[in-house]
Amino acid sequence: MNDSKTWSGRFNEPVSELVKKYTGSIDFDKRLAKWDIQGSLAHAQMLHQAGVLSADDLTAIREGMAAIIAEIDAGKMPWSLDLEDVHMNIERRLTDKIGDAGKRLHTGRSRNDQVATDIRLWLRDEITRIRGLIQNLQMALVDLAEQNAEVVMPGFTHLQVAQPVSFGHHMLAYVEMLGRDDERMADCRKRVNRMPLGAAALAGTTYPIRRETTAELLGFEQICQNSLDAVSDRDFAIEFTAAASLLMVHLSRLSEELILWMSPRFGFIDIADRFCTGSSIMPQKKNPDVPELVRGKSGRVIGHLTGLIMLMKSQPLAYNKDNQEDKEPMFDTVDTLIDTLRIYADMMRGVSVKPENMRAAVMQGFATATDLADYLVKKGMPFRDSHEVVALAVRHADGQGVDLSELALETLQGFSDLIENDVYDVLTPEGSLNARNHLGGTAPEQVRLQARRWRTQLLG
Amino acid sequence: MNDSKTWSGRFNEPVSELVKKYTGSIDFDKRLAKWDIQGSLAHAQMLHQAGVLSADDLTAIREGMAAIIAEIDAGKMPWSLDLEDVHMNIERRLTDKIGDAGKRLHTGRSRNDQVATDIRLWLRDEITRIRGLIQNLQMALVDLAEQNAEVVMPGFTHLQVAQPVSFGHHMLAYVEMLGRDDERMADCRKRVNRMPLGAAALAGTTYPIRRETTAELLGFEQICQNSLDAVSDRDFAIEFTAAASLLMVHLSRLSEELILWMSPRFGFIDIADRFCTGSSIMPQKKNPDVPELVRGKSGRVIGHLTGLIMLMKSQPLAYNKDNQEDKEPMFDTVDTLIDTLRIYADMMRGVSVKPENMRAAVMQGFATATDLADYLVKKGMPFRDSHEVVALAVRHADGQGVDLSELALETLQGFSDLIENDVYDVLTPEGSLNARNHLGGTAPEQVRLQARRWRTQLLG
Amino acid sequence: MNDSKTWSGRFNEPVSELVKKYTGSIDFDKRLAKWDIQGSLAHAQMLHQAGVLSADDLTAIREGMAAIIAEIDAGKMPWSLDLEDVHMNIERRLTDKIGDAGKRLHTGRSRNDQVATDIRLWLRDEITRIRGLIQNLQMALVDLAEQNAEVVMPGFTHLQVAQPVSFGHHMLAYVEMLGRDDERMADCRKRVNRMPLGAAALAGTTYPIRRETTAELLGFEQICQNSLDAVSDRDFAIEFTAAASLLMVHLSRLSEELILWMSPRFGFIDIADRFCTGSSIMPQKKNPDVPELVRGKSGRVIGHLTGLIMLMKSQPLAYNKDNQEDKEPMFDTVDTLIDTLRIYADMMRGVSVKPENMRAAVMQGFATATDLADYLVKKGMPFRDSHEVVALAVRHADGQGVDLSELALETLQGFSDLIENDVYDVLTPEGSLNARNHLGGTAPEQVRLQARRWRTQLLG
Amino acid sequence: MNDSKTWSGRFNEPVSELVKKYTGSIDFDKRLAKWDIQGSLAHAQMLHQAGVLSADDLTAIREGMAAIIAEIDAGKMPWSLDLEDVHMNIERRLTDKIGDAGKRLHTGRSRNDQVATDIRLWLRDEITRIRGLIQNLQMALVDLAEQNAEVVMPGFTHLQVAQPVSFGHHMLAYVEMLGRDDERMADCRKRVNRMPLGAAALAGTTYPIRRETTAELLGFEQICQNSLDAVSDRDFAIEFTAAASLLMVHLSRLSEELILWMSPRFGFIDIADRFCTGSSIMPQKKNPDVPELVRGKSGRVIGHLTGLIMLMKSQPLAYNKDNQEDKEPMFDTVDTLIDTLRIYADMMRGVSVKPENMRAAVMQGFATATDLADYLVKKGMPFRDSHEVVALAVRHADGQGVDLSELALETLQGFSDLIENDVYDVLTPEGSLNARNHLGGTAPEQVRLQARRWRTQLLG
Repeated sequence: MNDSKTWSGRFNEPVSELVKKYTGSIDFDKRLAKWDIQGSLAHAQMLHQAGVLSADDLTAIREGMAAIIAEIDAGKMPWSLDLEDVHMNIERRLTDKIGDAGKRLHTGRSRNDQVATDIRLWLRDEITRIRGLIQNLQMALVDLAEQNAEVVMPGFTHLQVAQPVSFGHHMLAYVEMLGRDDERMADCRKRVNRMPLGAAALAGTTYPIRRETTAELLGFEQICQNSLDAVSDRDFAIEFTAAASLLMVHLSRLSEELILWMSPRFGFIDIADRFCTGSSIMPQKKNPDVPELVRGKSGRVIGHLTGLIMLMKSQPLAYNKDNQEDKEPMFDTVDTLIDTLRIYADMMRGVSVKPENMRAAVMQGFATATDLADYLVKKGMPFRDSHEVVALAVRHADGQGVDLSELALETLQGFSDLIENDVYDVLTPEGSLNARNHLGGTAPEQVRLQARRWRTQLLG
Repeated sequence: MNDSKTWSGRFNEPVSELVKKYTGSIDFDKRLAKWDIQGSLAHAQMLHQAGVLSADDLTAIREGMAAIIAEIDAGKMPWSLDLEDVHMNIERRLTDKIGDAGKRLHTGRSRNDQVATDIRLWLRDEITRIRGLIQNLQMALVDLAEQNAEVVMPGFTHLQVAQPVSFGHHMLAYVEMLGRDDERMADCRKRVNRMPLGAAALAGTTYPIRRETTAELLGFEQICQNSLDAVSDRDFAIEFTAAASLLMVHLSRLSEELILWMSPRFGFIDIADRFCTGSSIMPQKKNPDVPELVRGKSGRVIGHLTGLIMLMKSQPLAYNKDNQEDKEPMFDTVDTLIDTLRIYADMMRGVSVKPENMRAAVMQGFATATDLADYLVKKGMPFRDSHEVVALAVRHADGQGVDLSELALETLQGFSDLIENDVYDVLTPEGSLNARNHLGGTAPEQVRLQARRWRTQLLG
Repeated sequence: MNDSKTWSGRFNEPVSELVKKYTGSIDFDKRLAKWDIQGSLAHAQMLHQAGVLSADDLTAIREGMAAIIAEIDAGKMPWSLDLEDVHMNIERRLTDKIGDAGKRLHTGRSRNDQVATDIRLWLRDEITRIRGLIQNLQMALVDLAEQNAEVVMPGFTHLQVAQPVSFGHHMLAYVEMLGRDDERMADCRKRVNRMPLGAAALAGTTYPIRRETTAELLGFEQICQNSLDAVSDRDFAIEFTAAASLLMVHLSRLSEELILWMSPRFGFIDIADRFCTGSSIMPQKKNPDVPELVRGKSGRVIGHLTGLIMLMKSQPLAYNKDNQEDKEPMFDTVDTLIDTLRIYADMMRGVSVKPENMRAAVMQGFATATDLADYLVKKGMPFRDSHEVVALAVRHADGQGVDLSELALETLQGFSDLIENDVYDVLTPEGSLNARNHLGGTAPEQVRLQARRWRTQLLG
Repeated sequence: MNDSKTWSGRFNEPVSELVKKYTGSIDFDKRLAKWDIQGSLAHAQMLHQAGVLSADDLTAIREGMAAIIAEIDAGKMPWSLDLEDVHMNIERRLTDKIGDAGKRLHTGRSRNDQVATDIRLWLRDEITRIRGLIQNLQMALVDLAEQNAEVVMPGFTHLQVAQPVSFGHHMLAYVEMLGRDDERMADCRKRVNRMPLGAAALAGTTYPIRRETTAELLGFEQICQNSLDAVSDRDFAIEFTAAASLLMVHLSRLSEELILWMSPRFGFIDIADRFCTGSSIMPQKKNPDVPELVRGKSGRVIGHLTGLIMLMKSQPLAYNKDNQEDKEPMFDTVDTLIDTLRIYADMMRGVSVKPENMRAAVMQGFATATDLADYLVKKGMPFRDSHEVVALAVRHADGQGVDLSELALETLQGFSDLIENDVYDVLTPEGSLNARNHLGGTAPEQVRLQARRWRTQLLG
């Protein structure tokens, strides 16, 4: 029997081979097999409880599905392009095994609600996995932060030296970003974890289904309240990909910094050899391949986001074949996130810090100029005036090629007679750091506090 | 005094006019004035409580700011490009009015944390407004749904007639979508409503600031816990624009349907004349301009999303001037959303439904074929077999140019002898509708239930 | 020997397995093997002519490469992830076969210029193929246009009936769009067809290479004039993907129309069964899967465009590992274009037109109202006044539920006494069509002219 | 008379104020006034030559338009939102001035072809201007390249020191990129410079128009050959924005490098003070605001590209109101390009180079390691072996904290006895540079050659 016969009563000719290949999804959606079966088993059990499916049929379906899972695990499931997609492949395999009971499984549902259910079950699990990996990376950064709470580096704005900051503080900035990513994933998961099953093709079904039962069996938090929306909604795919894009943006920023810091011009860190590669032509090279590739892969995920939004733009209700294009970008986004988060956590644990280079860089950019201005304000000068005084001092020191702390007291006093010998306390990087000892500030004490807060939260 | 002198102690030449124009933001960021002043007043009060600012200074600042607000309201505030941005313009105006107290306002903060605070205060308010407008549109749709719970229209998949649905049910699908938009806006607002103030330039400040005080005065739910993150984070802008994009995608879908339905080929609805325009050349035209423009404007918002993500990609910490580019896309997104939601709710209240045309369309696409298949299944035929039987009956009816319900009983029995006279009950659109009477199904009873649920929730 | 030893003299530990998998490209770039070998053979010949490579070495390399091609064709080439990419795999295989001569092949080049050369050679060939497929689709549309030059359908603006147009004219609009796509592909190919080989890692090489020789052997039109640009330029990838995006936008528009026209509400065309699928649950369905999927796939290609732009944004010179991410989007774009163009041309040849339905639709939208206005103008009424007269006549006819041509003469004369019996000539769709007989107009004579012009050009 | 009366014969109620504001375009499209009038004057002259418009009417129209241009120049033209757009405003103003002749101007055209003509006339001029500015920037870079042909800097790959390059060579890489941008603009302009006028609403017109005449008067190179395509095509907007995006990507890359080079960690260049700003809080800061803002603005343009593609996706023919959304992104793209190119050329002329810092950086990254490997190859060692020898030497030197050229001869000979005293010639940056003296290589001689080639081409 020709498989296309499923609907061929109305058709005068079979689907062309080219069309089969173009419209078939089995090559990529077989990945959903496990979740498809999970959904089918719950649907069968509900049908039985609703009196639509006999106990014998249910038993046969369960046994058949168990056999199919075993085949899949063993790599022996015969996937066929003639059967288009994962749903038809599994249903046909089931019917081959158990006969008419397999045919009755599709009662009261349609591929439209079935595929929407599969993809939500799958994504729900993947988000849980991704959240675990985010938290694992956060922990690696918290460790690094705590170990380096006292390490002073130049804080940059506009890539110009601005003020001294703690390297640990800098690491914790990324822990904050990742914390928001984790929140967004959790928020998104709430909206993923709603059950479309029962919407059938688009309008619901005439069978006495019990959606609460299926939802409970499958662990869905809510049930989609409108059948048309249930089969046509792909918000969750877009929302997930948007959250993933932000995560990748954050990692692109950290990657940019790692690449800068590992450049000999900075020399702030080193990345363990196992995360780097060399050159086929330049024997001296040690390249930060992993952060570069992560930076590059941010484009990939954001491309998927654009593609998915474009996909849904101005589609009339309810299901249209366009929607089949939702899967590959989601699959690739999930794979990219999982691989990237895993490798990133390992890599951050392989970062070695070079405090002396960082400190030397602090000494080269007048990083404590603000501290001098604040010093003058506290001695009574209005802020805008002290700002001008310090600007002139900086200009002088720059001309001499020295740091502010290297100017003699008399020289400094030439700019303001409010300056006294205690000025050198505020002109050191460490003095500057410790002076910013408030919630969110860069003082090592604050860094350790924040690290502890995160550690507790992540372990909690 | 040249305004650029603010930092000119270190500079050998003033900023060129072209650069002033290119880098200045006052043309668009003056829109933030009200929120900038709100933030400054809280900062001043906190400085006073922390003992950094005298009571007299605080009073002077409050009076000065009140005068400035009055000037802005009266359109008499002299905005100057020389002063770059809204912050410097207001600070200078304040200093002109109250002297040195004005200069002391900037103690313990920087423009980096100031602008981040302004934009969050502003966006927080706009999200509240947008949520109200979403709910207003939902209510218009709920009304329409309830009034048309019994109106039967063809439900489409692939733009082919699939099964009859209630027009009210169709409207409620959009209420669901908008409900998720509202949820996402609420989730996003949580992350907007966190206070960066106190991060100063990037590292915190040496003044004894009390961030909890400022946060409380300004109604922030949380405080940004890391100063570097506080000044460089623009997640909230991207997350908001992503949520806005999804909202526009939903409205682009509804717009597409309104345009289709108002086309003479469909003739399902009419839109009140005040939302349409005619043609300069074709006198018969009545064009659905508003939904078309909404569909077009979805591109604009999604463009802003892409732009903002691109903006942040691989920026090193902390603040970079790139970030100034965050404002215009956010402003335009907010304006587009507010105008669109407002006009859309009005327009939906001006939609008139043509039930007879909808019903006629149902009769032209074999919409009850599934019902016939279900009928046969309930009489004992396996689903996959009944599907084939019905396909042949459809093919026959199609050849005759009639609906299934218009075939004689003998003709129908030619396809299966399980068919009896009661078949005509399931072949009517109304029979089909009422048979889908479960949670999320299209039966008018369910539509009224859902409408009531939403009404309660929206009024709650 | 561990393959990573290539650069391990400087490294303390081998690359981790996870990193190998994350950074390796062999899974996708082996697709470039044929072009990689083509480039290597030309490089070897040039090295020999330049006196750098002996005749024996050249012969050995040629024989080795021939053997490798045979292995690849036979599916027996052992691709290894340890060897990272297609270049290293082939070089190692060559060295295994021919010894030291293989090691000398890499003289005077680097993987940076090698990969840039491979990808340009590949894309150049694919663009040629794509252009052929565009022209093939154009020809299918020209045929359809010529066959249907006289078929009248409603021309829509705002999806409202505007004026009658020839269906052939409508098809030719898409031939014009595809003509521009073809032009853009040709323009893009000029910039693809420039040779980076010789740039080596980034700065050129110390060997006496002759780039003109290699360029001539490989058929490159120009040589990249700057080595830094040569290895870091990915403009061609972005420009190609932008051209591809426009092509997909055009096909998304035609798809939208095919879907509309095949909807029972329109019923303007039918698509051959072999391009459609049915439903697993609704036996009457015949769905235009192919145009829907094409519409959906436009998102995919545009997503790749966004991703590639994001990839290149603010990358410092010269080569960075980010660039490895350029390949998958290009490969997928090319595959999508080729499959889509091929299936689309077949499908258009399987479109059957329903002229009677189109004509009936013309009669339902006052399509000749403009013709009536023009008629009045030619009788002496100012245009803006005639526009108003016709608007009133339309309103009256609309109230009666008839077309303008169905109003009695006296009724028409009630709106203007300039109207005489000859008015009915301009009120028929055919009269309207034939009256627009100028360059670019919809008159059947023009349609046939344009079809002939295109046929000549496409065959030329 | 209510202006909306233009089409109100068919309408029961006027357009609402909110809708007027939402759908009106006069706020932004009045910018097209000059080109709108240019098109109208050509149209009028053609109508006269075709015998449709009297000589008196033509004279009146010309005089009226001259008066309107004077009003616009004097800022006295009364733009009205009631009149929707620039076309209706000008037509009404004309009619107010010259009476019925003004009403006859719209004969044989529609706003659909009129607006498409306006925007193409406008964009054609802007592209010419943009090309001039691109070439101006190229010339600034050529000057800088020529002046710094001998200046040696580290060439980076992966932001690791790779090989020495000439700073002039590096500048010329951007001249190449801009050269491609200029080519793309020229290619795009060909497709912009085609005339839609004569397509009327969508189908052509019944008046005896002569499109060749109008095209010649307006300087169009080609005439749009299909009326449906003519009014619905927005390819040119997308193609232009794609070319603009690539240009911004190039400038984002150069900006990234300028920012890096101006960071104290690099110290390779200084940017004149007039292109920089300071800090409100950090007196020492001198920030590269302009390149940062350019980098940021790349997001804006790419956002417009995404938005425009989204706009056109799956729009049915012919004109839809969505298309009104094409203008603002195009206007903003043009403004951004023009301002950015202008300021960039000025800024590059204000860059001062610090050769000593660049040379010091070359000495810190084993930049001549490849040269040592090539040296060994030329002495007979196979390349892959020499690569390994050098890697070990680099590792040794790195441990000692010295450059390869600072190792004693005996030490070097410890790695290979092929090394002799002449090795020091290839180990200097200058030796390395001069050795890459082939087409596209970094040798100063090549740099000067390329600079001269560009200078000739740009002046030609």
